[in-house]
Amino acid sequence: MGNVPCRTIKTVTMQKIEPVADIALIGLAVMGQNLILNMNDHGWVVVAHNRSVEKVDDFLASGAKGTKVIGAHSIEEMVAKLKKPRRVMMLVKAGAAVDSFIEKLVPLLEKGDIIIDGGNSEYQDTQRRCQYLAEKGLLFVGSGVSGGEEGARYGPSLMPGGHKEAWPHIKDIFQSIAARSNDEPCCDWVGEDGAGHYVKMVHNGIEYGDMQLICEAYHLMKSALDMTPDEMSEVFKEWNKGELDSFLIEITANILAFKDEDGKPLVEKIRDAAGQKGTGKWTAISGLDYGVPTTLIAESVFARCLSALKDERVKASSILDGPEKTKFTGDKKEFIEQIRMALYASKIVSYAQGFMLLREAAAKFGWNLNYGGIALMWRGGCIIRSVFLGNIREAFEKNPQLNNLLIDDFFKEAVGKCQAGWRAVVAQGALLGIPTPALSSALAFYDGYRSGVLPANLIQAQRDYFGAHTYELADAPGKFHHTNWTGTGGNVSATTYDA
Amino acid sequence: MGNVPCRTIKTVTMQKIEPVADIALIGLAVMGQNLILNMNDHGWVVVAHNRSVEKVDDFLASGAKGTKVIGAHSIEEMVAKLKKPRRVMMLVKAGAAVDSFIEKLVPLLEKGDIIIDGGNSEYQDTQRRCQYLAEKGLLFVGSGVSGGEEGARYGPSLMPGGHKEAWPHIKDIFQSIAARSNDEPCCDWVGEDGAGHYVKMVHNGIEYGDMQLICEAYHLMKSALDMTPDEMSEVFKEWNKGELDSFLIEITANILAFKDEDGKPLVEKIRDAAGQKGTGKWTAISGLDYGVPTTLIAESVFARCLSALKDERVKASSILDGPEKTKFTGDKKEFIEQIRMALYASKIVSYAQGFMLLREAAAKFGWNLNYGGIALMWRGGCIIRSVFLGNIREAFEKNPQLNNLLIDDFFKEAVGKCQAGWRAVVAQGALLGIPTPALSSALAFYDGYRSGVLPANLIQAQRDYFGAHTYELADAPGKFHHTNWTGTGGNVSATTYDA
Repeated sequence: MGNVPCRTIKTVTMQKIEPVADIALIGLAVMGQNLILNMNDHGWVVVAHNRSVEKVDDFLASGAKGTKVIGAHSIEEMVAKLKKPRRVMMLVKAGAAVDSFIEKLVPLLEKGDIIIDGGNSEYQDTQRRCQYLAEKGLLFVGSGVSGGEEGARYGPSLMPGGHKEAWPHIKDIFQSIAARSNDEPCCDWVGEDGAGHYVKMVHNGIEYGDMQLICEAYHLMKSALDMTPDEMSEVFKEWNKGELDSFLIEITANILAFKDEDGKPLVEKIRDAAGQKGTGKWTAISGLDYGVPTTLIAESVFARCLSALKDERVKASSILDGPEKTKFTGDKKEFIEQIRMALYASKIVSYAQGFMLLREAAAKFGWNLNYGGIALMWRGGCIIRSVFLGNIREAFEKNPQLNNLLIDDFFKEAVGKCQAGWRAVVAQGALLGIPTPALSSALAFYDGYRSGVLPANLIQAQRDYFGAHTYELADAPGKFHHTNWTGTGGNVSATTYDA
Repeated sequence: MGNVPCRTIKTVTMQKIEPVADIALIGLAVMGQNLILNMNDHGWVVVAHNRSVEKVDDFLASGAKGTKVIGAHSIEEMVAKLKKPRRVMMLVKAGAAVDSFIEKLVPLLEKGDIIIDGGNSEYQDTQRRCQYLAEKGLLFVGSGVSGGEEGARYGPSLMPGGHKEAWPHIKDIFQSIAARSNDEPCCDWVGEDGAGHYVKMVHNGIEYGDMQLICEAYHLMKSALDMTPDEMSEVFKEWNKGELDSFLIEITANILAFKDEDGKPLVEKIRDAAGQKGTGKWTAISGLDYGVPTTLIAESVFARCLSALKDERVKASSILDGPEKTKFTGDKKEFIEQIRMALYASKIVSYAQGFMLLREAAAKFGWNLNYGGIALMWRGGCIIRSVFLGNIREAFEKNPQLNNLLIDDFFKEAVGKCQAGWRAVVAQGALLGIPTPALSSALAFYDGYRSGVLPANLIQAQRDYFGAHTYELADAPGKFHHTNWTGTGGNVSATTYDA
């Protein structure tokens, strides 16, 4: 058809719009541009589109110059340039923009065509869109994309979920552009409807936890041991050679060593008020909603909230008393090693909680999640990538039905080795007045999880006492009892207490 | 009109339906019945209605026999029996039932009539209903009612909010039936639209926290000190004579002393898996949504979630190792006093967090909350009633603009006196392997709140390093910077880390 001579403008137009592209990408912000160039590197022909169409020309004349990338000034043109089944990926702002493009695409697409949302959408939105597009005969994929701009360009972690029939048609593209770990792509099919975006959300929640744990280690070394940023950088560099080997530990070492123009450590000049983009919060809320104790993520989100109250804290710092002793006076080297143990053990708890949440969501929504595959997806390309995720993958490959990471042999032993140091650090933090909300919350969870008996029997007694909520007996669960606690004459009582 | 002779059935009916009642109450479950009897005790004429109308007759023939309570078999009859402006209170299941009765009432009521929802509605629903009924010219009040069945009967804590024009018309009824503290009613106007139900929600969240703190104290005494329930009951009895004097401490002493038919302590036979009804969860979610670190409430909700995983815990208890030393070997009496200090200081933190959340919600929704008044409403009648709430009231009366309870002189000193014991207990919990999620979370918050500098500068550096999220400098807030952390040749980098 390309050789037919042009006779009219109309046929020229017809001729131009040949279906040559493997995939379309809407949204030419940096993430979108980089993902296109990544796809191009791997031999895929991408048609690029953007709501402000001048961005298309700019991109073709700059970043995409000399590549096989083609442009489209309208959605119609973009769709016409796609091979079938058509694959359209969006990297636009989560929310209304996604729905708006979906509405524009629906009349132009055919049964079996595929729409992919690569933005940071809430999983509930993805669930809704899956249902809506299924009714239209279209396939929808909501995919987490992690790794920032550079990840998008050279190898992101990709977490696609939605209509599984779409997977065979996008698998080769997705796996070719993804990060790799031990020559395996950090991308596999996650599960039904919102599963991809849910897994990405939990990834982000865990990222909040990892960052908070590192901050607490830093705080302890800085405040209890009076270490300089350079000294701490060396410690993180050392840690990065062992069990804690990870992107975040690595960049922490780099950050602590980084000097401002005046030769002083830049990190110490930065304002200690942290921002957040919401996904950590969503994860903690999901934990609350589904009754999964994701305490470390919640504490990490709350720690950012508290950091943001900078003015209040500065005021309070001149009013509220701390302990008399605020410096560690024991063996410094031993304490640093104990901090490492506390960080590692707490990290294990954090991931155990994250996978508990995934398990609960999977049960709730009927997702058939591959936990080892999720660990592999996070193993490379994304912010939480680490050697540690390889251990998690192994645990789930050994036992796909593993109920909790903590009881896997590898992690049981790892925590066992670390626990004395972990306990010592949490105790020191409390005594020296250095807040360790994530380290101590993780330890409380560990000790709670390994408690065959917790004091919640007293809660049940209280609830029955004041509200007749009933309780079960330990030796006969499932049967509910009520006791008249105040005896024959009495009532559960506003009157027994003189308010 | 009552003296006009009856000539036709129609006029008989007309005559019967005289507007004699001060208020109507819909919903004759125990709470509703008790609230009616309470109103009757205080001289109000109540017309009772229920969806299943046989309940009306049952009630008039039993609980309400010999009172001035009258019944109505239909909403129309109920409305006809009301003086104007008509006051209709509902105590029905939160959710659809409330909307359904509102729809039935709207066509029967006149401008200026008042609908009151006394159920456990979510505050967002109350906000919506306020707006909807304002459009109809009706006044709506969403009122928290706390104190359980007995509170409803003899003096609940009432937290009304919504359309303020309604308050003069319901104030006398509400304040007459409410609990009293130092001869003041535990009921005052809370604020606009959903404020009453919001305050009730936070009350319940704080209740979760109080109960969890007591459980942790119980757990420490039981596990670290091997104390018997009788011994612990004596301790709680003692504590109830001092700063901790409260309904929940009082009933805990009673519960621990309570013997089953075989003479053994009943509390020890109760299954340690706690339930929840959602309001604690809502409070924690609200904290996350509005960026207020309500860590103690969140940990308390999560502790219930963890307790509910009884089977998992029992399994883990035979797999996971604890510390070698699990018993406290120091001065037992001193440790008990330290536990009391830890409980009291943590409770102060919990209430400080709760009032922080109220302050944030008030700012968000434009509510003009009277914090001292809220403390007074909680001072009597409800589950968290305590001497302590009197101290909180005083703090806010001394300074209605008080930014945080922790910096009030009374509480600053109270925490100051307790902190050494508090720190010792959290440290012991960590070392002995006894989980204290609420006590330790509260301490971490306290130490974070009084930290002029927190380690969040490192979080900001990390976010800028991997995501170019920018940061502020400590000496120039409000101006955002980005640094190319990896230097001239580098990138924020998926490539610097070999995944």
